[in-house]
Formats: sequence, structure tokens, C-alpha cells
Amino acid sequence: MIKFFEKAPYAPVDYCYDVEEILYKGKSKFQEIMVIKNPHFGKMLILDEVVQLTERDEFFYHEMLTHIAMYAHPNPKKVIVIGGGDGGVVREVIKHKTVEKVYFVEIDEEVINISKRFFPTVACSIDDPRVEIKIMDGAEFVIKRPHSDIDAVIIDSTDIIGFARSLFTTDFFIAVKNCLTDEGMFVTHTESLHFHKDMVIEIQEILRKVFPLVDLYTASIATYPGNWWAFAVASKSLSPRKARRKFDIKTKYYDEEIHQQSFMPASLYEKLMQRKLQW
Amino acid sequence: MIKFFEKAPYAPVDYCYDVEEILYKGKSKFQEIMVIKNPHFGKMLILDEVVQLTERDEFFYHEMLTHIAMYAHPNPKKVIVIGGGDGGVVREVIKHKTVEKVYFVEIDEEVINISKRFFPTVACSIDDPRVEIKIMDGAEFVIKRPHSDIDAVIIDSTDIIGFARSLFTTDFFIAVKNCLTDEGMFVTHTESLHFHKDMVIEIQEILRKVFPLVDLYTASIATYPGNWWAFAVASKSLSPRKARRKFDIKTKYYDEEIHQQSFMPASLYEKLMQRKLQW
Repeated sequence: MIKFFEKAPYAPVDYCYDVEEILYKGKSKFQEIMVIKNPHFGKMLILDEVVQLTERDEFFYHEMLTHIAMYAHPNPKKVIVIGGGDGGVVREVIKHKTVEKVYFVEIDEEVINISKRFFPTVACSIDDPRVEIKIMDGAEFVIKRPHSDIDAVIIDSTDIIGFARSLFTTDFFIAVKNCLTDEGMFVTHTESLHFHKDMVIEIQEILRKVFPLVDLYTASIATYPGNWWAFAVASKSLSPRKARRKFDIKTKYYDEEIHQQSFMPASLYEKLMQRKLQW
Repeated sequence: MIKFFEKAPYAPVDYCYDVEEILYKGKSKFQEIMVIKNPHFGKMLILDEVVQLTERDEFFYHEMLTHIAMYAHPNPKKVIVIGGGDGGVVREVIKHKTVEKVYFVEIDEEVINISKRFFPTVACSIDDPRVEIKIMDGAEFVIKRPHSDIDAVIIDSTDIIGFARSLFTTDFFIAVKNCLTDEGMFVTHTESLHFHKDMVIEIQEILRKVFPLVDLYTASIATYPGNWWAFAVASKSLSPRKARRKFDIKTKYYDEEIHQQSFMPASLYEKLMQRKLQW
């Protein structure tokens, strides 16, 4: 069988997948887009030779990136989703009945098109009337917004290199804070605690200069190198550790118990931020 | 650079490592043993083409396999360690001041020798006077024991195929139960929740037929395929979720908070055992 060797940035292990079939390969303005079929994971979306999602396990990442922030908010109505052109986060956000408006800001329209074509179960809510698609740089969209009316900002970017870097700067985080309501929540992935610990710490440090409350939770994602995926969540007033609404949606993994348990224990978080963890 | 392609059983992702140097390659009576040097992980022990440990991250696995059972016990004095010829679990067990005797039962003496030679920080407690080495099949050792005097039995086997299979049978689990005191604890790794979910469930099911209390906790191990590693812990009377002694040893990862948090939430565990988890 043909093999696909992933070229994940900074990963000290190379992941290699069987390829039953290459369903699509093309170049957008921003990146190479590939869709392959793997015997175990089903269809896989690959951008610039890095696995973004698989049909089989995408729900771990999309649920965990979305619902912690959404349930920590008492009544999220307006949401900005940046990146996540596949539509996975939008699908999860739209599950919340409180939601009235989703600004779906994706820089690469081609990812949306490819996801609609090959991943209909992921892209299924992109055309929901509450979703407004903005094809542009997410940082630009947020920085230029004059209102403080957003309840949650969710970043689903590619790895923190290249054009995704603009979503991990102090200026961007300040702009996010400005566009949020007082109860607003911000969440972003921050790579693997095993392989990119320094990056995880740095993003926490930048966020802590901007937001009064910053926290860290993790989930295990089998197809992201290092697996032990860290998410940074920040807010102006409400702790993200607490779910503020009854769990009322359908998920495959996330629930109230996982909400609580996914946060890093205080002792470990303290050691992490003091750079005392030795690995 | 030379590459090492791992041949992990049942893993739908192949892991591939850079090889700076092959430090050792040989065959024992039971398996091929290889020690390589990797730029990120340092020295790595590989048995039959499967990564067993790396210098850099072995503590995650060894601490998590050992200390949950050891701290759930109020006063562990006699311990059986089966497998783990590298000495990592023995090193962690010996940290507990309560421990008077460790039966270290390894089928392949050559693994002990290689570990002493190449992994001195892992093998460091093998020659402790409290440790009695038994070169034999672990199942045989336990099944033939007439006493019920053991406080903890810890299995650190290779993947659950080949000669390690004897450590995952009903007969073996009954023998373990018989050799434990009333407060005794049994713990074993059970592969990855991402990649080997059915195996994780089956081992829980077999254990539940034998032990009154059976539970499941997880840890993320970067160099074991699927990463999200599941451990089964079983006992006659005491819940393993509770640490029963003050945390009084030096670790890099495990502590009281991680003890509690590593157990699977009740809701998820129930869904798992009802085979309702869809991945």
C-alpha cells in the first residue's frame, strides 16, 4: 500500500499512514490540500503534508475545542470561529441552542469547498443561516471590529507557523479581549504538551498579560503528533472550569464530567508555568 | 539520518524515529533487543521492533503504572513486579519507604542486562537488597504461590500478544487475586484507548469477573502508539481512586491531584463498558 509520511512541524516522531486512495490533491493560494483514504481512519484532510482531521476521530478535537468555552458561558449568542475551514467547530457551535450568530472566518476558501465535497458530516452546518462566512485573515477581522458583543472566540488554526502565527500575538489577543463581552470566552489550541511544551507555556504567558483568567485543558488526539493536546482558554471574569448550563447536546466524547476533568491539575499547571516540568 | 520504523501490533499509524546511532542489537531467547539513540528522546529500548521506553519520557509510564496502586494501598510492604525488565517499575516501587520486599519476575534476563548497561537511570534499583529477581514466566510464578501476602501486583508486559498473553487470562487474574492480601492492589497496562478500545474493554470485563473492584485510569505516553494509554486496576476491598498515604516521594509527573484526575469519569467509563463509545 502507498504510505503518507506526515511532515508535522517540530515533531520528533514521524507519523506514517497507509493510503488506500488519494481522493484529492491540489494547491490553493495558501497551501497544498490533500484528501486521502486510510483503512482505519477513513477519509483524512491533509494541509501542507500535516494531518488536520480524520473522519474517525475528528470529534475528539472539535468537541473539546468548542464545548469547554461554550458551556463555561452562561448564554453564548454570538461566536467567532477563526480557521477550521472544514466546518467541524462550526458544527459543534451550532449545536448550542443559544447561538444566534456565528462569524466563520477562514483565510482559505478552498478548504471549505473541499470539506463540503469530501467531509459532509464535518461541514454539515456551514450553510446554517446563523453562520456568516468571511473569507479573510482572522486576526484582521478581529482587530478591525469596533464592538464588544462577542460571547466566544474559538481559534482552530493549523500549526503555529506560517500564516497561522498572526493568531498567537499579544496584539491579536488584545483585540480578542476587546471584542468579547464581560462574560466572553476565548479558546485556542496550543499544540502538544509532550512535544511543544515551551510553546504551550509561551502562549499561556502572553495570554496572562492580556486576560485576568487564563487556564489550560488537554485532550488526547491520536492523529496529532504528541497527542496530548493542550488548549488555552481565557476570559475576563468567568472561570472556564465550570460548565454554566445543563449539558443538552449530542456529543461522542465531551460531557460535564470531562469538562471538569480535562483541566490541568493546579499542581501540574504551577510546575509547568514555573518551567519545572522536565521533559 | 537512518530511520527506525516501529512495528507496533494493531497500530493504524506507523511511528518512525531518527536513529543517530544503533548502540546495541542482539537476540535473546525470547525477542530481538535493540538500543538506539534518537536526537530528541535520547536512548530508546526497542523489543521486537516495538519501542518500550525512551530516556526522555519513560517516567510518565513508569510513574503512572506504579504509584496509583502503591498510594491506594495504606501500607504496601510486599510487591510483585512482572515484566518491566528495564527496572523502571522497580525503581518507582522502591521509592516507597513502606516496601520491604519486591519480587521482580522477568522472563527475559537479557533485558535486565541490557538495561543495566544502557539505561542506568532506569535500572538503578534492580540491585537494591529488597529486590529479589526471578527469571521466569510471571504467570507461573503467581499461579504457583500458596500465600496471600502480597500488597501489590504490577504488570509491565510488552504488548498483549505472544508470550505476554499469559498475563491477561482469567486463570492468571484469579491467581493474582489469591496471592493478594485483603487490601491488595493489582494493576496492568491495557494498551491505547484510541487504538485498542476493544482490548481495553475485554480486560476490564475479565477482571470484573474476578475482582470486586475494577477501575480504569489513563495517561498520555508519547511513544506508545495511540498515546492515550489505559491502565486497569483491580482490588478486593479498597477503591484505587483514593490515595491513602501522604505523597512523600520524588516524581516528575505523578502526584495526588494526578492520581485522582487520571481515572476515567464515571459517565465515560459506563459508556465504554456498554460499548457505546463510537471510535
